[in-house]
Amino acid sequence: MKRILYGLLFIVCSQCNTWAVEAVFTTEDLVINSKKLDETRNLVVYLPAGYSKSDAHYPVLYVTDGDIQGPHTAGTLDYLAKFDQAPQMIVVGIVTPRETRERDLTLTSADKQDPEQLANADLFLAFVEQEVIPEVKARYRTLDYQGLAGTSHGGQFAINALVKRPGLFNGVVAVSPSLYWNKSQLLTLTETALKQGSLQGRLYISIAQEEPTMTEPFANFVALTKYYPNQQLAVISQTFSNETHNTTALLGQYYGVKYLFDGWAIPETPQTLADLQAIFATRSSLLKTALIIPEDRAAGYGQWLQYLNRQDDALTMLQWNRETYPQSLNAHLLLIKAYLHFDMEDKAHQALSEAMKSIKGLSTEQKAQLESLFL
Amino acid sequence: MKRILYGLLFIVCSQCNTWAVEAVFTTEDLVINSKKLDETRNLVVYLPAGYSKSDAHYPVLYVTDGDIQGPHTAGTLDYLAKFDQAPQMIVVGIVTPRETRERDLTLTSADKQDPEQLANADLFLAFVEQEVIPEVKARYRTLDYQGLAGTSHGGQFAINALVKRPGLFNGVVAVSPSLYWNKSQLLTLTETALKQGSLQGRLYISIAQEEPTMTEPFANFVALTKYYPNQQLAVISQTFSNETHNTTALLGQYYGVKYLFDGWAIPETPQTLADLQAIFATRSSLLKTALIIPEDRAAGYGQWLQYLNRQDDALTMLQWNRETYPQSLNAHLLLIKAYLHFDMEDKAHQALSEAMKSIKGLSTEQKAQLESLFL
Repeated sequence: MKRILYGLLFIVCSQCNTWAVEAVFTTEDLVINSKKLDETRNLVVYLPAGYSKSDAHYPVLYVTDGDIQGPHTAGTLDYLAKFDQAPQMIVVGIVTPRETRERDLTLTSADKQDPEQLANADLFLAFVEQEVIPEVKARYRTLDYQGLAGTSHGGQFAINALVKRPGLFNGVVAVSPSLYWNKSQLLTLTETALKQGSLQGRLYISIAQEEPTMTEPFANFVALTKYYPNQQLAVISQTFSNETHNTTALLGQYYGVKYLFDGWAIPETPQTLADLQAIFATRSSLLKTALIIPEDRAAGYGQWLQYLNRQDDALTMLQWNRETYPQSLNAHLLLIKAYLHFDMEDKAHQALSEAMKSIKGLSTEQKAQLESLFL
Repeated sequence: MKRILYGLLFIVCSQCNTWAVEAVFTTEDLVINSKKLDETRNLVVYLPAGYSKSDAHYPVLYVTDGDIQGPHTAGTLDYLAKFDQAPQMIVVGIVTPRETRERDLTLTSADKQDPEQLANADLFLAFVEQEVIPEVKARYRTLDYQGLAGTSHGGQFAINALVKRPGLFNGVVAVSPSLYWNKSQLLTLTETALKQGSLQGRLYISIAQEEPTMTEPFANFVALTKYYPNQQLAVISQTFSNETHNTTALLGQYYGVKYLFDGWAIPETPQTLADLQAIFATRSSLLKTALIIPEDRAAGYGQWLQYLNRQDDALTMLQWNRETYPQSLNAHLLLIKAYLHFDMEDKAHQALSEAMKSIKGLSTEQKAQLESLFL
């Protein structure tokens, strides 16, 4: 029972800000007059809950078939972020309508490799890199992290992007990619790249219950990534036996995004400062930006450790919290309370004078609140 | 390869209308000044893609913790509908903020069963039935089908609703319901209801990797539904070993909604008229409204059967299509083409004069199009 209560407590805690009015993601249409493609293209941008009321920057996930695959991807990310399993992300749905879908997403034929004469997926990748990404970066508050997800021909496009522009995307999700295309040309390209050790980032690839035309090149692709292991590339594959080619994208996207942010989630057990710091180091590394443990997180775990009478762990956490957030009345209050809880009167008094000294513009009420701890 | 091409063909076909501009679901805030609860309550309504441009009526799914669980549920339903695994639905997210969440969703204590003095989940259920549902029905184009989904305390609320107001919801999804509440009071209430045979509809219930406090009453609940099988109630249960209490809702909702509409999807194989009619009979029964095979579906399968040279099946389908949609030039054209394909010249000529007779206001161009089939 205790752990359930904790679980509920922490749900409440991590979601405090999501109970506000703007708790739902919003969408915006974006039109790009592409010079690369010499046509007008539509994007649907899914802005995470709270975007307009925040000044935060967000990682971006680009998704092909953006109007079909975008809504569930944005919903999945919203859910994962609310339960702190992944960061909030801007999802950019690149609309690939049926008229141009095959041309946009499938591989350039072998005789069109002249970089000046890009065609098909290579040309569309240049459009994404040189027109879509700069426009998104100019218009929205983005971090440098960017991922790419695609299904079927979109999966083929995503793996082609991994091979042709390694490092452009930090994470790639390829759901049931049509790797049979052009006599499995992408397998050859991938093998060359794997031999050169040029690939990087995280790759999630999945397949459903499908025809051998689909499953055989998939199996060969996975085998290649195992045969030529690559320090800079982490790969995981998954098979959905109860889904078909047409139904598999939601589960693929769910597990795919979870894999891109593997190591992000905080285990549902008491965490010490060192534990949390390790997790936030992983998060920082995944997002390529420095993330610091938020005050409410440190406070919550500090109180939990105190409740468990793990004195050293609790004090280390709450001391760190006060040092890191010296202007926070709450950080000072919690540390003083902890000293008193562990019968450390002297330390508590020192912490009181530290609070009086540190917090700028302390009000009479706040002073009284601090002093009342000793009554 | 053939089946993949068919698969892609049918994706395209079933999604023709989703490539339009309004391909994404939209949200509306709704405020109810509740007399039942004597307070103001917030709802978030997720309208399916294309809602504003259509005059169709939609089934409704009510979801507790509407701002937390709503976005991914709406995304999941959007995806399932686009791949024709479930109907498009209006999702009504009932916001249950933390201040009132426990009071709203957990069981009325045993001494508060006086119907005049409802409390807790029973009172909140009366609010949903007597204030939320009528408001939603007045404001949006709804069908009579309504489902209820909830997670944790929301799952407790959903099962309590199934027991206390059987038939109010046609389908119930309870993800990791907190059945331990009030010394497992809900198990006793469920057993009584099962003995009386009063429960009805479809129930999906799931659990994750959780504490015995959660898993034991869950197992007991599932055992009860098996011990007292009920003609009118269909139950399925699922365990997510790789999810926790806090992370399980997305998968639970996905499989839950799929179960509520089990029998909805059309298998990815050639379908005869009888097959399709059986599926549409199931759909009609699930939604409690008469649904007819759409013209483009009958046309698509008719052409597929013709391609496979299954003469009788193809002609039966295309004849039905012409009889059902006598004003459709395309329905007539396809039947004439099929007769010609199967070398049935006389039938083709009869079908031509039938077309000339049936279609009101046939243009000169359309006439020419029909006649050109015989050139």
